[in-house]
Amino acid sequence: MSYNTFGHMFRVTTWGESHGPAIGCVIDGCPPRIPLDVGDIQPWLDRRRPGQSKFTTQRQEADQVEILSGVFEGQTTGTPISLLIRNTDQRSRDYGDIATRYRPGHADVAYDTKYGIRDYRGGGRSSARETAMRVAAGAVARKVLGAAVHIRGAMVQVGPHAIDRARLDWDLVNTNPLFCPDAQALPVWEEYLADIRKKGSSIGAVIEVVAEGVPAGLGAPIYGKLDSDLAMALMSINAVKGVEIGEGFAAASLTGEENADPMRMEGGHLRFASNHAGGVLGGISTGQPLVARFAVKPTSSILTPVPSVTREGENVDVMTKGRHDPCVGIRAVPVGEAMMACVLADHLLRHRGQVGS
Amino acid sequence: MSYNTFGHMFRVTTWGESHGPAIGCVIDGCPPRIPLDVGDIQPWLDRRRPGQSKFTTQRQEADQVEILSGVFEGQTTGTPISLLIRNTDQRSRDYGDIATRYRPGHADVAYDTKYGIRDYRGGGRSSARETAMRVAAGAVARKVLGAAVHIRGAMVQVGPHAIDRARLDWDLVNTNPLFCPDAQALPVWEEYLADIRKKGSSIGAVIEVVAEGVPAGLGAPIYGKLDSDLAMALMSINAVKGVEIGEGFAAASLTGEENADPMRMEGGHLRFASNHAGGVLGGISTGQPLVARFAVKPTSSILTPVPSVTREGENVDVMTKGRHDPCVGIRAVPVGEAMMACVLADHLLRHRGQVGS
Amino acid sequence: MSYNTFGHMFRVTTWGESHGPAIGCVIDGCPPRIPLDVGDIQPWLDRRRPGQSKFTTQRQEADQVEILSGVFEGQTTGTPISLLIRNTDQRSRDYGDIATRYRPGHADVAYDTKYGIRDYRGGGRSSARETAMRVAAGAVARKVLGAAVHIRGAMVQVGPHAIDRARLDWDLVNTNPLFCPDAQALPVWEEYLADIRKKGSSIGAVIEVVAEGVPAGLGAPIYGKLDSDLAMALMSINAVKGVEIGEGFAAASLTGEENADPMRMEGGHLRFASNHAGGVLGGISTGQPLVARFAVKPTSSILTPVPSVTREGENVDVMTKGRHDPCVGIRAVPVGEAMMACVLADHLLRHRGQVGS
Amino acid sequence: MSYNTFGHMFRVTTWGESHGPAIGCVIDGCPPRIPLDVGDIQPWLDRRRPGQSKFTTQRQEADQVEILSGVFEGQTTGTPISLLIRNTDQRSRDYGDIATRYRPGHADVAYDTKYGIRDYRGGGRSSARETAMRVAAGAVARKVLGAAVHIRGAMVQVGPHAIDRARLDWDLVNTNPLFCPDAQALPVWEEYLADIRKKGSSIGAVIEVVAEGVPAGLGAPIYGKLDSDLAMALMSINAVKGVEIGEGFAAASLTGEENADPMRMEGGHLRFASNHAGGVLGGISTGQPLVARFAVKPTSSILTPVPSVTREGENVDVMTKGRHDPCVGIRAVPVGEAMMACVLADHLLRHRGQVGS
Repeated sequence: MSYNTFGHMFRVTTWGESHGPAIGCVIDGCPPRIPLDVGDIQPWLDRRRPGQSKFTTQRQEADQVEILSGVFEGQTTGTPISLLIRNTDQRSRDYGDIATRYRPGHADVAYDTKYGIRDYRGGGRSSARETAMRVAAGAVARKVLGAAVHIRGAMVQVGPHAIDRARLDWDLVNTNPLFCPDAQALPVWEEYLADIRKKGSSIGAVIEVVAEGVPAGLGAPIYGKLDSDLAMALMSINAVKGVEIGEGFAAASLTGEENADPMRMEGGHLRFASNHAGGVLGGISTGQPLVARFAVKPTSSILTPVPSVTREGENVDVMTKGRHDPCVGIRAVPVGEAMMACVLADHLLRHRGQVGS
Repeated sequence: MSYNTFGHMFRVTTWGESHGPAIGCVIDGCPPRIPLDVGDIQPWLDRRRPGQSKFTTQRQEADQVEILSGVFEGQTTGTPISLLIRNTDQRSRDYGDIATRYRPGHADVAYDTKYGIRDYRGGGRSSARETAMRVAAGAVARKVLGAAVHIRGAMVQVGPHAIDRARLDWDLVNTNPLFCPDAQALPVWEEYLADIRKKGSSIGAVIEVVAEGVPAGLGAPIYGKLDSDLAMALMSINAVKGVEIGEGFAAASLTGEENADPMRMEGGHLRFASNHAGGVLGGISTGQPLVARFAVKPTSSILTPVPSVTREGENVDVMTKGRHDPCVGIRAVPVGEAMMACVLADHLLRHRGQVGS
Repeated sequence: MSYNTFGHMFRVTTWGESHGPAIGCVIDGCPPRIPLDVGDIQPWLDRRRPGQSKFTTQRQEADQVEILSGVFEGQTTGTPISLLIRNTDQRSRDYGDIATRYRPGHADVAYDTKYGIRDYRGGGRSSARETAMRVAAGAVARKVLGAAVHIRGAMVQVGPHAIDRARLDWDLVNTNPLFCPDAQALPVWEEYLADIRKKGSSIGAVIEVVAEGVPAGLGAPIYGKLDSDLAMALMSINAVKGVEIGEGFAAASLTGEENADPMRMEGGHLRFASNHAGGVLGGISTGQPLVARFAVKPTSSILTPVPSVTREGENVDVMTKGRHDPCVGIRAVPVGEAMMACVLADHLLRHRGQVGS
Repeated sequence: MSYNTFGHMFRVTTWGESHGPAIGCVIDGCPPRIPLDVGDIQPWLDRRRPGQSKFTTQRQEADQVEILSGVFEGQTTGTPISLLIRNTDQRSRDYGDIATRYRPGHADVAYDTKYGIRDYRGGGRSSARETAMRVAAGAVARKVLGAAVHIRGAMVQVGPHAIDRARLDWDLVNTNPLFCPDAQALPVWEEYLADIRKKGSSIGAVIEVVAEGVPAGLGAPIYGKLDSDLAMALMSINAVKGVEIGEGFAAASLTGEENADPMRMEGGHLRFASNHAGGVLGGISTGQPLVARFAVKPTSSILTPVPSVTREGENVDVMTKGRHDPCVGIRAVPVGEAMMACVLADHLLRHRGQVGS
C-alpha cells in the first residue's frame, strides 16, 4: 500500500508541502557501501531548480539538500537515507484568494473534495516543489545503477513545435535552459515561449528520456513490467497526461513489418537492427536503449480569467497573478530522468533478488 | 512487492501459461456480501473470447470460468475469490521451432535472457491468454463498483484510420466485432483489416475506455494517483506502448486557455464546462468521466520473414504461420475496460479506508 | 497490503475453504531453474495429513497436490507457481447447527461480526485445512533454500508434559506420530492424549522449529527483521497464542551475564559458545541455528457443553460432536517448519536483492 | 516490501541513527481532519525519554519533536506527516573500541556481516533510540483511534520477580518510573534493580500491553491477522525475544474446558465470561480487551568482560563502560503501547476499506 512511496526494493517516500518548513524523502533499501555525499545529489537539484531562466517560475530556492541518515563515512550503510531540503522562500503573504477560490485545472478542488481540507499555500502537497525530492532520489538511484547506465532527457516538443529528429544532438541539451536538443528548434522555442510568457499564457510540452547501458533482463511479467512501472512513475509527475514507450502511439499506425526489430548475432552479441520496441519486450529490458516520452499539459496558472467556483459554492472568475511557469515541461526534464533512474534501480535489485545476478 | 499481482485493497493475482493445464486468478480484499456467481463473470469472458470473427485468432477456447472459493450461497464472503479456467485447446503439436527460434517482437528472447528458461508453448506466461483473467477480475470489480459506475470501451483507431469523434456512437460498439463506435469507419476498418489479414500482416490500434459515474475523490497523491495507477494497469496489457488521460499527448500543443476546464455551480452541484483533464486533477477523480486511451502495437506474428536468432546464437529468418490476430487491439477493448474497473474498485476501497466514506 | 498473502520476494497467497471444491496457493517470485515436481511437495503434505493416528482428526483427505503453472519440463520458470488440492471429503451433511450456533473459541462469531457472512461448512476459511497450502509452499521454499539449510520441528510440550532437553533426539521425531523427540516423554504423552481423547477434551502444546545452515546476514532492520517476520508467520498459524526466539520468555529472568553468547574465532570462522539469541542479533541471522518455539492452544471443539450464543442472539450451550483433534499442536509441527522455510526463502531473496550475494 | 516501514494503510517509516544529526519518521495514510499538534505527541515522548530515573540510561536527550508536514492549521491533511527529532547529546568522543570490537549480544557483528559497513556510533541504526519515533507515531495512531480505545502498558515481571495479578493496579503504573502496577512488587523491583545496576549487570523483563474499547471485527484472515501483525510489531522492538496473546504460552498447559471463553447475550450485547483468547479469535478482534505480552532480554552492555572478536578477526574480551540501562524493559513499556496503537489504527482503516464501517 503506497500513497507517497514508490518502488519495491529501492523505495522512495516523499513528504512535505510547498510552503511548510521543509520537504524531504526517505530512500529505503539502498545497497550498502555505495559512495555518497551531498556532492552527488546537489548538482541534479541545481539543474531542476527554478529561477534559472525567464521561462521558469521566479521562485528562488537554494534547494540545499542535507543527508540526515543512512550514510556513514561517505558510504551508504544499507539503512534508510533521509534527505531534507528546508523551504526558504516562503514569503509571508496573503493567501486569502487561493484559500477559497479554486484555480481551474489545479488540484485545489480535488483535494478539498477528497480530504475536506487542504494546505493551500503554494499548492501545498500538490506543488511541483515535491519533484525536487524525486530528483534527489534519482541522484542516489544513479549511484546504484553505476556509470554503465547512462540516463538523459530532453524536451522534444514545445506546443506545436517538435524537434527534427535528424538534428537531435544530446550535447546541446545541457547548454540551454530549455533542454533543447535541436539547434534550429531552440531559437524558435525561445521566441515562442517569450511570446507565451508575455501574454500570461502557458503551453504544453513533450519530454523524452533515454537510458543506455540498461542490462537485459530487468523487469518482470506480468504486473511488474519495466514499462508499466515506468508508465506509473512518469504519469505520477505533476501535469503529465500521457506516457509512451518506443514507438508509443505511433505504433498504432504501423504494420507488423514496419514495427519489427530484426535481430542478429554480431560478434557473439545479440544486436537489434532497430528499436521500435523502445528497449522492452514482454515487460523485460532487452539491452537496447530504454526510450520513454511523456506529455506535459500547459500549467493552468494563466492571466486570462477562467470561470471557477469558491469553496463555499459561489461562481467566480479566477486568474493567477504572480510568478509562474509558462512551460512546466521544462523543469520536468530532470524529473523524468530521475524517475527513470529510480525505476531502473528498483528493478535491478528486484532482478538480482529473484534471479541472482 | 508484486510481480503477478496488482491493486492494493482490491488485489488481483493471476497465474498460468497459455498451454498449461489452466489459468486462474485470486482476488483478495473483495468486500463481503456482494452477490456473485459465474453468470456475473462469464458474459465478459465471452466478449473477450477469441475466434468470434475472422479478425481475431482462430484459437477456440470455451473459457468457462469456475469459482473455487470466496463465494458462499451466492455472496462474496470477504475471503479470497479463486477463479479458474481450464485450457482446452492445447493441441499436441510440434513446438520445435518456437522452442529455439526467437520470434522478433515477442517476449521470447527477453524471458530466456532473464530466466534462462521459458515455457515456449503458445507464448507461455507472455501469451495474451493471461488477459482472460483480467477480464474475469474486472467483472468482479464491476460488482464492487455497483451500477452507478458505468465503464465502456471502444476501438477509436485502426492503423491510420481514426474515428470521427463527431460520429461517436457508443450504442454501436457492441453490435460489431471490432468494437467500432463510428458507423462510417466500420466498413473502412473491415476492408482494411481484411486486406491486412490476407497479406499475413498485422496492424496497431488505439482503444479508448471511459468510466462514468466515478465518485469524486478517488485516487491519492503522490504515488497512488488514480491516473498513474491507471497508466500502470493499461501499460501492463500485452502489446500496449502508450497510455494517455484526457487530452493526453494533444495537451502538449495546447495553451493554458485552450486546456482549461471552466467550473460552475449548477443546482448546487459542481459542473465542468469541458473535460480536457479526463476526469482527474492532481491524481484525484473530479466526478467527470474518467477518460483513458492506449495504443496497441501490431502483433509481431506475421508471414513476412524477419531476421532473428536462435537460442543457440544462430542467425535465422522467422515467420509465424498458423492462427494469429491481424489486430490484437480488438481483443484489448474488454481488457482495457476490466483494468479500469479493477483500478477504480481498488481506489474506492482505499479511499474509504483512509477518508471513511 | 496483504490479507491472504505473506512474504515479499517469495510471496505465498493461499485461498480456499474447508468444504469448497478446492484449496490452493500461488507462489510468486520463485527463482527460475529450480527442479520441482509433485514429488518434492507431496511427501510434506503426507506428513501433515490428518487421520494418520488416533490423535488427529479422522477426516480423510488424499491431499493430492497438482502443479498448474510455473513449472516447465521439471523446472521452475520464474513465473507464478499455482498449486491446487481438490477437497474430497466433503460429506453432504446437515450443517444447520454450526450455521447458527457459534462454537466458543472458534472464529465463527468473529467472522460473522466482521463480514456479516461466513462459510460455516467445516470452519470455511478459518479451518486448519488452509495450512495444507502452507506446507506445500514450504516444500517449494525448501528447494529455494537448497540442501545446506536444514529445517526441522518437534513437539516439545503437550499439556503440562515438557520434554527433557537432555534427552532431545531429533532422529526420534519422524518415527512417531506425535513428532516427539524424547523417548521417555513419548509414552507419557500417548497415555495422556489417549485420556484427553477419551474424555472428549483437548489440550495445548508447544512446538519448536530449528533451522540449521542459515547463512549469516539474512533479515533486515528495522521492520523487516528475520525474527519479527518469523513471529508473524508462526502467529498466523491457527490456534497459536505465543512465539519465542532463542531463550524467549526465559530471557526475562536472565542477567546479561547469563544471556551472553561469547564469540571466538576458530579456524578463521566466527563461533558462538552458546545460542541464547536463537540465531538472530538485531533482526539479522548470525549463522547459528535459528530457533523458534510457538504455543498452540487446545482446540475449542470439546464434548463438554460451553455457554454460547446463536447468530440471532439466543443463549445456547454448544458441544462439538464428531471428528476432531485432541491436540491440534501435533499437526502444527510440519506447518511451523513450512512457515520457517518460507520466511527464510523470502529473506534469502531480499538479502540478495539489496546486498548482492 | 518494507525494511523500515510497517503498517499498510496507516504506514510508519522510521529513519535515523543514534548519533547522526536527527531521527525521524513519516506517517502515510493518516486520515484527514484529525486535530494534531506537537502537544499531542511530546508527552508520550517525554514518558519514554531516558534519564528519568537511575534505572535507565543517563543519556540526556530533550527529544523535542517537530512536525514538518501533513498538518495544516492544527489538523491532519491526509498527506504524509513528517516528524523529526534532532539528536542533541552526541558527545564527541572516541568510538575506537566500539568501531572494531563487537559487543557480544549486540547487532554489531550482524550488521557488519550483512552490510560490510555499519555506523557504530552509539549503535547506529540498531540503537533503541529508534524507538522514540515509534512512540511519536503511536501518539498519532492514538488520535486516529479516538478516545474510545484505551491502550496502556505495564511491566509485569523484572527478572525472576513477577507481579501478583490479584494486586494489579493500573493507576499505580504512571506514578513510578518502573511502570510497575503492583504496590508490593515495586520496592522489591527497586531493590533488585539497584543491586543489578551496582554490579554493572542487567536483567530481562516482561511487559504487558492492553487495549480496551477495540471494536469487534478488526484484523483479517489469514495473513493479516490482528494478532500476527501485533506479534510482528512487538517482536520488532529491540531486545524482544517473545510475544504472546491472551493466555499465550500458558495455553499449552490448558485443556479445552479450561481455555474456553463462554459467551452470553446480555442486554442485547455479546459478553464473554472470560478472556483466555486475549481479545482475538481467528485473527479478528472480538470486542474484548486485546491483551499482549512480550519478553525483553537483558541488555548485553555489562561490566563483566565477555569473549568476543574484532572486525579483523582477533579474539578479545569486551566489557561495556559508560551509561547503560540495567533493564531495557522499562523503556519498552511506552514503546509496546505505541506499537499496539499503530497496529490498531492500521487495522481500523483496513477494515473500513474492505467492509465499509
